[in-house]
Amino acid sequence: MELESLRALRHGGGFEKSILVQLPLPKHINEEKILSEISIEKDVDGFHPLNIGKLAMKGREPLFVPCTPKGCMELLSRSGVTVKGKRAVVVGRSNIVGLPVSLLLLKADATVSIVHSRTPDPESIVREADIVIAAAGQAMMIKGDWIKPGAAVIDVGTNSVDDPTRKSGYRLVGDVDFAEVSKVAGYLTPVPGGVGPMTVAMLLKNTVDGAKRGIVE
Amino acid sequence: MELESLRALRHGGGFEKSILVQLPLPKHINEEKILSEISIEKDVDGFHPLNIGKLAMKGREPLFVPCTPKGCMELLSRSGVTVKGKRAVVVGRSNIVGLPVSLLLLKADATVSIVHSRTPDPESIVREADIVIAAAGQAMMIKGDWIKPGAAVIDVGTNSVDDPTRKSGYRLVGDVDFAEVSKVAGYLTPVPGGVGPMTVAMLLKNTVDGAKRGIVE
Repeated sequence: MELESLRALRHGGGFEKSILVQLPLPKHINEEKILSEISIEKDVDGFHPLNIGKLAMKGREPLFVPCTPKGCMELLSRSGVTVKGKRAVVVGRSNIVGLPVSLLLLKADATVSIVHSRTPDPESIVREADIVIAAAGQAMMIKGDWIKPGAAVIDVGTNSVDDPTRKSGYRLVGDVDFAEVSKVAGYLTPVPGGVGPMTVAMLLKNTVDGAKRGIVE
Repeated sequence: MELESLRALRHGGGFEKSILVQLPLPKHINEEKILSEISIEKDVDGFHPLNIGKLAMKGREPLFVPCTPKGCMELLSRSGVTVKGKRAVVVGRSNIVGLPVSLLLLKADATVSIVHSRTPDPESIVREADIVIAAAGQAMMIKGDWIKPGAAVIDVGTNSVDDPTRKSGYRLVGDVDFAEVSKVAGYLTPVPGGVGPMTVAMLLKNTVDGAKRGIVE
């Protein structure tokens, strides 16, 4: 289901204050102020700091888990990839993906490392990973020789690169060099078509779960 | 200043609802419920999930940073240890120390790895660290050969071990084998006397900062 129709469904479904803020906002709008106006019970994106705090803390559960990170965990789980006790390396530390997926992996008993733009030698750390979450927003930065043979690689990146052979003049690629990494990895999600549809599915799941809670309460 | 006198100061200073919950609580008391009763403006421990969420998120600042993690950062800063771009390994993932100190190190641009009880081979990861935060609650688990020469090691552990030579019958030791690690590390905090007094100092600082905000607002 497309985001637009999902939003229409929710707006038409009696959620008077149910809102999802499509990030990023234009620069002149204060993201923090806007997001803090969302009711915690309707924060289907899971970006409210109270939800992030509960996501981070042992023994606490957020009302909603952010959609893309939740989709990554679902992909691992449905593919039969063990998380507990494994080395997971998350590339990127955004509030939307890198940070929350790191917290989820930690809660699932992975040993988690977070590499980012200030990491001098990310490839040496990625090379140790059984599970790689690529969420840096850098087109095809992760090469075949960064990957331990058999590792599970989830590519969250969506970058447009020039492609004169396309009518549009561009194509979408991930943060992973698919041609190279697919020869080494045990599991690899494609871009487009991997994490993106899972994100939408998880958003729908969060919305339904939130609605059910609203009806019961 | 001792915790008791600090608490007395705060109770005597007009903070009608200012409370600090001494954790851990007895098992029959629900920690989450008790902690959620603390006003966010007076959460000098920094353990409220809203504070933890803002601590975790890029571009957000919590009202209070948890005291022990804040003390660790202060120790590094005052010792002239660079954090940005360095490998930091946190041993332990508790809500009180391991998790929040990981988040602080990440915000300070370290490359952060978190190892814990489910990590099969913690020493191989600790060995890569420029900065080690030991917060596992395991007496003297971190040995000399776990440490990269010159690394900065902060020992948060406080464990009592039997010691028949003492009148009390026990002594306090950290998570680090001090005798061994002191020969390898560039910096090492002692137990007792290292992180403990810093925690109390940071608690006092948080309390004063909170009081100032209360007066201004």
